[in-house]
Amino acid sequence: MYEPIAPISWRDGQVEMIDQTLLPGELVIIRPRTVEEMWDAIKKLKVRGAPAIGIAAALGLYLAVKDSGARDKAGFEAELQKAAAYLASSRPTAVNLFWALKRVQQAVAAAATDDVAALKELVLKEALAIRDEDEAMCRAIGEHGASLLADAEAVLTHCNAGTLATARYGTALAPIYTLAARGKVLKVFADETRPLLQGARLTTWELHQAGIPVTLITDNMAATVMARGWVQAVIVGADRITANGDVANKIGTYGVAILAREHGIPFYVAAPASTFDLSLSGGEQIPIEERDPAEVSHFGLRPTAPEGIGIFNPAFDVTPYRYVTAIITEKGVIRPPYKQNIAKVLAGESR
Amino acid sequence: MYEPIAPISWRDGQVEMIDQTLLPGELVIIRPRTVEEMWDAIKKLKVRGAPAIGIAAALGLYLAVKDSGARDKAGFEAELQKAAAYLASSRPTAVNLFWALKRVQQAVAAAATDDVAALKELVLKEALAIRDEDEAMCRAIGEHGASLLADAEAVLTHCNAGTLATARYGTALAPIYTLAARGKVLKVFADETRPLLQGARLTTWELHQAGIPVTLITDNMAATVMARGWVQAVIVGADRITANGDVANKIGTYGVAILAREHGIPFYVAAPASTFDLSLSGGEQIPIEERDPAEVSHFGLRPTAPEGIGIFNPAFDVTPYRYVTAIITEKGVIRPPYKQNIAKVLAGESR
Repeated sequence: MYEPIAPISWRDGQVEMIDQTLLPGELVIIRPRTVEEMWDAIKKLKVRGAPAIGIAAALGLYLAVKDSGARDKAGFEAELQKAAAYLASSRPTAVNLFWALKRVQQAVAAAATDDVAALKELVLKEALAIRDEDEAMCRAIGEHGASLLADAEAVLTHCNAGTLATARYGTALAPIYTLAARGKVLKVFADETRPLLQGARLTTWELHQAGIPVTLITDNMAATVMARGWVQAVIVGADRITANGDVANKIGTYGVAILAREHGIPFYVAAPASTFDLSLSGGEQIPIEERDPAEVSHFGLRPTAPEGIGIFNPAFDVTPYRYVTAIITEKGVIRPPYKQNIAKVLAGESR
Repeated sequence: MYEPIAPISWRDGQVEMIDQTLLPGELVIIRPRTVEEMWDAIKKLKVRGAPAIGIAAALGLYLAVKDSGARDKAGFEAELQKAAAYLASSRPTAVNLFWALKRVQQAVAAAATDDVAALKELVLKEALAIRDEDEAMCRAIGEHGASLLADAEAVLTHCNAGTLATARYGTALAPIYTLAARGKVLKVFADETRPLLQGARLTTWELHQAGIPVTLITDNMAATVMARGWVQAVIVGADRITANGDVANKIGTYGVAILAREHGIPFYVAAPASTFDLSLSGGEQIPIEERDPAEVSHFGLRPTAPEGIGIFNPAFDVTPYRYVTAIITEKGVIRPPYKQNIAKVLAGESR
């Protein structure tokens, strides 16, 4: 009860993954057996969410080399490098994917053995370590966040920063799972999150699957939900956080933050330490990717707007730090003033 | 150039209507020849928007009686009453529809003639008067609103309060057409307006058709558009306005109003005097209709969310008067304090 599903598992010598492109309609488990099948799964967004993609890519490396006929470490590393370059091409903008591939390669490079069988095991071990560490990180975020949400009856979230995006538990949704496991079941309002509907398709699905009551709304209903006093907190994930506490996250997050402030509702951001980019002093330095206009003008293949008009389709927005009540990381909760406290908490000092 | 299309016309003894259910894909003109065909057009939302529905219903009455074989006024009025009851059943919640039907019936009742041919002409004349008065009202709103938007480069609007909802020109979009006709062409950002996408389907279509540059965004992008300084005003329509200036309008309006305030952007409401309900002292007295959950959980017939979850689908929200910079009516612009000034302007006194 209240246990979130893991999007990627290693079971009986096989990778098992939820095909997220078929959610919420069908729960289909796929079992990629080759690196090509894993490349395809990542490419086609069957797995999504930065941490989950990293885990999938690392396991993809193992699929690539598990039957390697390499005779020595050099030959094995050459195969690994080839597979890593191939997997990296599946989602060329996914930073976490590159990080995971590199981490596995570095573990192999550091190994003091020429035994290819041992190196194969090392690749698998490192991939599973990436997964286990991500799950532990999500659990820690869940613990820290639970203390902030303990008095809430209901929360609102935007997009999907849940179990489906990570090894398990998620970031924004982790405190909700943590509290539920303790017997404190919050109600969740999920913004559908146009244009790609991650909230409607994924957040509602994973919460419902875990037995947590969830109500779907269109993004433009959030203000009314707040005005009615139905939620006592907002909690979202983050794609990048700058040194001053500005938060880049899925388009629509900034508007929700303003609405929360206006209704006197705390606005929490849950994200691992790896999300912080302290080389950037503020959100204005974050480039905002604009995506295919057809995501806005079409639903699937069906046009919903006339041809020839302008379309604006930013993937992310930036929420200035002044709207952020606290940032929940695996290392602890960070509160303003962010410039000082981000550095402190990330360095492991207590506040 | 910059001339908005009229959704309903009377041409060569026939009603011509844009089938709005086929927009934005196709511009199809339908010509209902019988009251049954008009009933069907209203029922199937081929015409929508309170004023446009009223005009369609009044013309539907004429279609019902134009070939009447009634011998006297009493017989004619009986036929008219039957047709009115029938047309009223096409959209049982459309107040403007009842109003228009009643107005035509009252004109006939007041006529001092037994000549059925003359009474038939009177029905048509009254229907066309309803249309002409609505167009004049929209033009007056356009004139008053133009003065408020004269310094803007671009505005943001929500839902569709445009020419397609009225006889012509619309309410929220009227000032934009008025300014364009004077050579001052504003750029418009149109919220797509989930769940029914009136902004994506109708607002973009009618502005584009009139040669006015329009950019479509999802509702959750409005905050980013404002933060970038791209719009200098927001203008929306209204379904009902209470005595204190609270505004009920399409879901999402309230959130846009908060975002406008936060970015220092004026928030204007354009609506005819008939929109005011002075019997209500505040927005909390307005019942908020909740619509079919499938509008949120499905796109067309395709589910976009899992079964079994909660869904909240309010049709409207209420924007408290304190977020409203001014209300633009055909009688003039109303500014705070609303309690005094609404009564004054509606009574025809100048401020």
